Amino acid sequence: GELALPLTPSSFLRIGQLSNVDLNEDIHELETEVPRQRPNEIPHNEKLLSLKYESLDYDNSENQLFLEEERRINHAAFRTVEIKRWVICAMIGILTGLVACFIDIVVENLAGLKYRVVKDNIDKFTAKGGLSFSLLLWATLNASVVMVGSLIVAFIEPVAAGSGIPQIKCYLNGVKIPHVVRLKTLVIKVCGVILSVVGGLAVGKEGPMIHSGSVIAAGISQGRSTSLKRDFKIFEYFRRDTEKRDFVSAGAAAGVSAAFGAPVGVLTPGCISFQFFASMISTFTLNSVLSVYHGNAWDLSSPGLINFGRFDSEKMGYTIQEIPIFIFMGVVGGILGALFNALNYWLTMFRIRYIHRPCLQVVEAMLVAAVTATVGFVMIYCSRDCQPIQGSSVAYPLQLFCADGEYNSMATAFFNTPEKSVVNLFHDPPGSYNPMTLGMFTLMYFFLACWTYGLTVSAGVFIPSLLIGAAWGRLFGISLSYLTKGSIWADPGKYALMGAAAQLGGIVRMTLSLTVIMMEATGNVTYGFPIMLVLMTAKIVGDYFVEGLYDMHIQLQSVPFLHWEAPVTSHSLTAREVMSTPVTCLRRIERVGTVVDILSDTSSNHNGFPVVESNPDTTQVAGLRGLILRSQLIVLLKHKVFVERANLSVVQRRLKLKDFRDAYPRFPPIQSIHVSQDERECMIDLSEFMNPSPYTVPQEASLPRVFKLFRALGLRHLVVVDNRNEVVGMVTRKDLARYRLGKEGLEELSLAQT
Amino acid sequence: GELALPLTPSSFLRIGQLSNVDLNEDIHELETEVPRQRPNEIPHNEKLLSLKYESLDYDNSENQLFLEEERRINHAAFRTVEIKRWVICAMIGILTGLVACFIDIVVENLAGLKYRVVKDNIDKFTAKGGLSFSLLLWATLNASVVMVGSLIVAFIEPVAAGSGIPQIKCYLNGVKIPHVVRLKTLVIKVCGVILSVVGGLAVGKEGPMIHSGSVIAAGISQGRSTSLKRDFKIFEYFRRDTEKRDFVSAGAAAGVSAAFGAPVGVLTPGCISFQFFASMISTFTLNSVLSVYHGNAWDLSSPGLINFGRFDSEKMGYTIQEIPIFIFMGVVGGILGALFNALNYWLTMFRIRYIHRPCLQVVEAMLVAAVTATVGFVMIYCSRDCQPIQGSSVAYPLQLFCADGEYNSMATAFFNTPEKSVVNLFHDPPGSYNPMTLGMFTLMYFFLACWTYGLTVSAGVFIPSLLIGAAWGRLFGISLSYLTKGSIWADPGKYALMGAAAQLGGIVRMTLSLTVIMMEATGNVTYGFPIMLVLMTAKIVGDYFVEGLYDMHIQLQSVPFLHWEAPVTSHSLTAREVMSTPVTCLRRIERVGTVVDILSDTSSNHNGFPVVESNPDTTQVAGLRGLILRSQLIVLLKHKVFVERANLSVVQRRLKLKDFRDAYPRFPPIQSIHVSQDERECMIDLSEFMNPSPYTVPQEASLPRVFKLFRALGLRHLVVVDNRNEVVGMVTRKDLARYRLGKEGLEELSLAQT
Repeated sequence: GELALPLTPSSFLRIGQLSNVDLNEDIHELETEVPRQRPNEIPHNEKLLSLKYESLDYDNSENQLFLEEERRINHAAFRTVEIKRWVICAMIGILTGLVACFIDIVVENLAGLKYRVVKDNIDKFTAKGGLSFSLLLWATLNASVVMVGSLIVAFIEPVAAGSGIPQIKCYLNGVKIPHVVRLKTLVIKVCGVILSVVGGLAVGKEGPMIHSGSVIAAGISQGRSTSLKRDFKIFEYFRRDTEKRDFVSAGAAAGVSAAFGAPVGVLTPGCISFQFFASMISTFTLNSVLSVYHGNAWDLSSPGLINFGRFDSEKMGYTIQEIPIFIFMGVVGGILGALFNALNYWLTMFRIRYIHRPCLQVVEAMLVAAVTATVGFVMIYCSRDCQPIQGSSVAYPLQLFCADGEYNSMATAFFNTPEKSVVNLFHDPPGSYNPMTLGMFTLMYFFLACWTYGLTVSAGVFIPSLLIGAAWGRLFGISLSYLTKGSIWADPGKYALMGAAAQLGGIVRMTLSLTVIMMEATGNVTYGFPIMLVLMTAKIVGDYFVEGLYDMHIQLQSVPFLHWEAPVTSHSLTAREVMSTPVTCLRRIERVGTVVDILSDTSSNHNGFPVVESNPDTTQVAGLRGLILRSQLIVLLKHKVFVERANLSVVQRRLKLKDFRDAYPRFPPIQSIHVSQDERECMIDLSEFMNPSPYTVPQEASLPRVFKLFRALGLRHLVVVDNRNEVVGMVTRKDLARYRLGKEGLEELSLAQT
Repeated sequence: GELALPLTPSSFLRIGQLSNVDLNEDIHELETEVPRQRPNEIPHNEKLLSLKYESLDYDNSENQLFLEEERRINHAAFRTVEIKRWVICAMIGILTGLVACFIDIVVENLAGLKYRVVKDNIDKFTAKGGLSFSLLLWATLNASVVMVGSLIVAFIEPVAAGSGIPQIKCYLNGVKIPHVVRLKTLVIKVCGVILSVVGGLAVGKEGPMIHSGSVIAAGISQGRSTSLKRDFKIFEYFRRDTEKRDFVSAGAAAGVSAAFGAPVGVLTPGCISFQFFASMISTFTLNSVLSVYHGNAWDLSSPGLINFGRFDSEKMGYTIQEIPIFIFMGVVGGILGALFNALNYWLTMFRIRYIHRPCLQVVEAMLVAAVTATVGFVMIYCSRDCQPIQGSSVAYPLQLFCADGEYNSMATAFFNTPEKSVVNLFHDPPGSYNPMTLGMFTLMYFFLACWTYGLTVSAGVFIPSLLIGAAWGRLFGISLSYLTKGSIWADPGKYALMGAAAQLGGIVRMTLSLTVIMMEATGNVTYGFPIMLVLMTAKIVGDYFVEGLYDMHIQLQSVPFLHWEAPVTSHSLTAREVMSTPVTCLRRIERVGTVVDILSDTSSNHNGFPVVESNPDTTQVAGLRGLILRSQLIVLLKHKVFVERANLSVVQRRLKLKDFRDAYPRFPPIQSIHVSQDERECMIDLSEFMNPSPYTVPQEASLPRVFKLFRALGLRHLVVVDNRNEVVGMVTRKDLARYRLGKEGLEELSLAQT
């Protein structure tokens, strides 16, 4: 898809003086010249980049209004702004902590209720036969709970599906995912997670906390809710992408902290102190409330939703001989993780093609719920692994066919929330599990978890991954002791922990954050080094085969995600090849009709327009003067900020920054703004609204250079200029995200209107 | 110091065609017009910015040579480069770990020897009287050891003084501190630290590990040592500031890790994975070697040089009632920290004014060593705090005037390396210390540590700060129990930990890194939240009074340090006011004599020159075409890359990127390059050596905007252009660092040739 390069300045610029006829011709020209711009019917595959995602703008539009406001604010007022920031972060932390408590307590009670009902039923039917009724009861219970959870997601807010981590990752990367930080999404997410976990799916409730924290942050920092139509008239200063992003990253941190008790889990861009503070408050709130709820009020020593229990390091150190074993476990985790991701990839492709109707999605979720229950039941039924009930800490011991005083050990793995199962695998004394039980459980749970991820329910993949890993890790530890005839004493709990780390690392491919999370959740730093080692190995091995689960899903959504650096071999490309051209420019004093026509022209994907010098008859070069955003133009048109052509000297109506902030972030579409024929002939002066100092690059700049500028500053539009400061093109996120490092070198994705 | 703004293009540009006479006139003009540029005799104060520091360039000069090389490298070759990076990081980790081991083992042995000698002496003289001989022995021993440590620092490598953390902070910020990453510095640093600690000063050996790790990283990544005149011809690809910085940050991380066993201690800019990996390897190396050395080979569960011992969290949780107490301790820590910093500030000012001769510095260091020994001795002598020797873990129990089977408890605090004293204060059972002892010790040690920091010896302030804090924390805990008549049971060890955190936080003002470091060093995450709380409180309270110790010293050195963001109230300034103007520009094809003259002209502080279109007679605007660095010009002149004016069509000698890399980073001065009178008349074509796409800003851009661009991309020179892309000025680090937020708002520092 290389473009022929028009080299005369006139063809670079489309100075906005187009009549309707011109405009149509222009579209035509655009379509023939730039065929890759709007191919509508490309079958879905991962080598696409969707045009439907817009960018967030992390670069303040420093127009006159903005500068005037900033200059008016003195030192003391800035301190007030700073204090407001801290207050907002505290509120984010408190609310995130409370939401986490709510989820935890509701899940605990509902799941407890369910298990008691099913257990009583099984106990009843074990004696008199007819356990198929129990199975039916269990499967029906699960399926109906999951149905509700899936219904609300599929029909009310599809973006609440999954863990939300890929979405928040994209948001913080600068991609505007529609609805992702709305209040409605939060409500659906919270209810959805509760229902998925209670419905017995192979899911966790931790991942979604990150999304929840982010929504809370976005809501509070704006001081209003558009969904509820309430504007509290506070925090208006923060109504722009730049500020909102910082708070969202603090919210995400608070979410991680509430889920895992790990305050340094997310190191997203943005101010570290705020993230840190919000995390602190969030953990603290969660702990205080839960400690009161659990009766041992004010003992704050167990942070986080998930707590893997303490490994007593005095008893369980590790030696250098174990290092190669851990590395081997990392390799296994990497391979199993890659397998998980590959299976999930095919499944997701299948879902994108065939299960895109909401009804079907609900049916699939119910099916998975029923199958999960059935598999669990059959495995419990077939298992003959009985363990003495004495001294064990099983919550719902199921006797089934075991002798009195014993319980079915397979049941503890299935008949429990996954969180509890993980803790059991870590801490149950050696000998609690039969190797056969563990093997079967690993196998089954692996496929169930893989099938579950990507369903239209709110759910996380952290805990299932840990559970799979803990199961095979423990199995591995037992086998090791057995095979070496006890010469290596492998504590099963320790190996379960390493297995869990390896499996999770192999699936999500994080290293630093996961190390901290695992360290925090085990309340112990001794295992820091081996956990790191395992995670890095798993990542390296996994990356060799296939991408991480979150990145894979981001790619499957064709999101224009920008990594930290440009692909290494992209120095051969320059801004000239990468940019879109021609670019629609506006004149500094422009005819209203032209502005309306340009905004209505859907062929232009850009949401920002370079502003050039207004006088086109002089021979003077039409150098770049500024950049104005579509949203700003919309506000100008809405407030009719223009004067008649005859009275250009008359001062046009003044707008305040507040007018722009009130419209943020849901600017009305151009169709909703009525401009009369007379008004079309008026002129609009963009000088004080445009950003007079947009960042620019020369056409000779290499792609990595452009990329670095774009990414480091969080830009949305980057104007490409020639030696005389004339506009020759525009680089946006899609132009950069298109180039990716494939197996054979640099590859270029196609753009599509998916 | 506002400048009158010349507005005609001709006065903006100094197209480089100056004869010697012109040049002198120009200097004259410069001096009258821009009086703040070279004021030589301003008395030292903190409102100065030194002109002696140059910037590092984190922006690759993407000239033709560079791009050609990058384009030649294919995908597979990039993988080799990536593997080399990992190998280098592993080597950095291993060497840093080994250096840490070396320091640890040598200090342990030498200090042990010293304490045994003194103890035997005291034991001898206690019986027969004449303890003043013991005092004399102790003081002389200390003073002579410190003398050697101070001599090598003062006379061989003054930059090795102190902990090196401020220097590395500046380096990573982009300031070139002379000699900071040289091999000689490393050798002096390591020996200096050993001698300071053995000399009984109130110092730690942990801080300097960060500096050591950085030097190791800088050395290895360049594959050569200029000091040793050895070039291993490897890693030549990494011979530029950009790459070197990433490795130095990995080295700093490895240093932190070796010192504290905390792999996530430093979160400096640069690639996190490499930092993480180097840390991992470093901890691992240290542990392996130390575990073998200490006899319990292969037990790797105690990471880091300093290990505060494990707090058993089962026994020692914390409750919500303690939170306000912890916050109060944070306040105390903040105030004491601010006091420490203020005292140290006055002391440092005094030192800068009166103790700048190396001999005096050595004498001061010896004095401090002798005083430290004397104070210790007198306090031990006066103390009547005897404790039973049974069951205690004191290394060198000093009986002195205590009964048989008892030891002097004051002696344990002084008669020990500070690291061990900290651990004792954390873990000795309740009742081991008399409140009076603790109070006196805190008071004395506070002033000693304050006096010691800033001496011309290599030493860190971490451990002394922790020790002061641990002492008053323990005292606080004991008093609390006593005052509330036991209704609050304050475990002295826990309060010692919190006090240590508060004091350290109050002095250095870090939060995130310190929390992780303290958590790692105590092997426990339970106290994560309260430690964070204490650190944040201490930081907020401390910041109210005076800056953190490291920032203060950076400011006292007048280093042009750039913070993350521009001062909040700086929107009123634009690039036009901030930039230096006029700027010396070069033409694309320039006369050699002109280049030599410009480079020899010391009035220009810039090390980069905008390159403009070469033909000055046409009416065409002289738009910016590129940017060339002084160092690049030097290499061009050295290799005589020029052609006679008559034969402009002849291709000039080609240079390779290797020629530039070989000269990096110590480019010869212009005076060492001889250019004959004939050669002066030759022409030099800069096209392929200049960076053709330098970043630019328009003159209207606000200071925060310029700042953001400069800081985010790690620039050294930022060209300011007008609407026609003509050069109007240049912004460098000093122009931005000059503006600072003082107590009353924005203030401007003066520039001085200190």
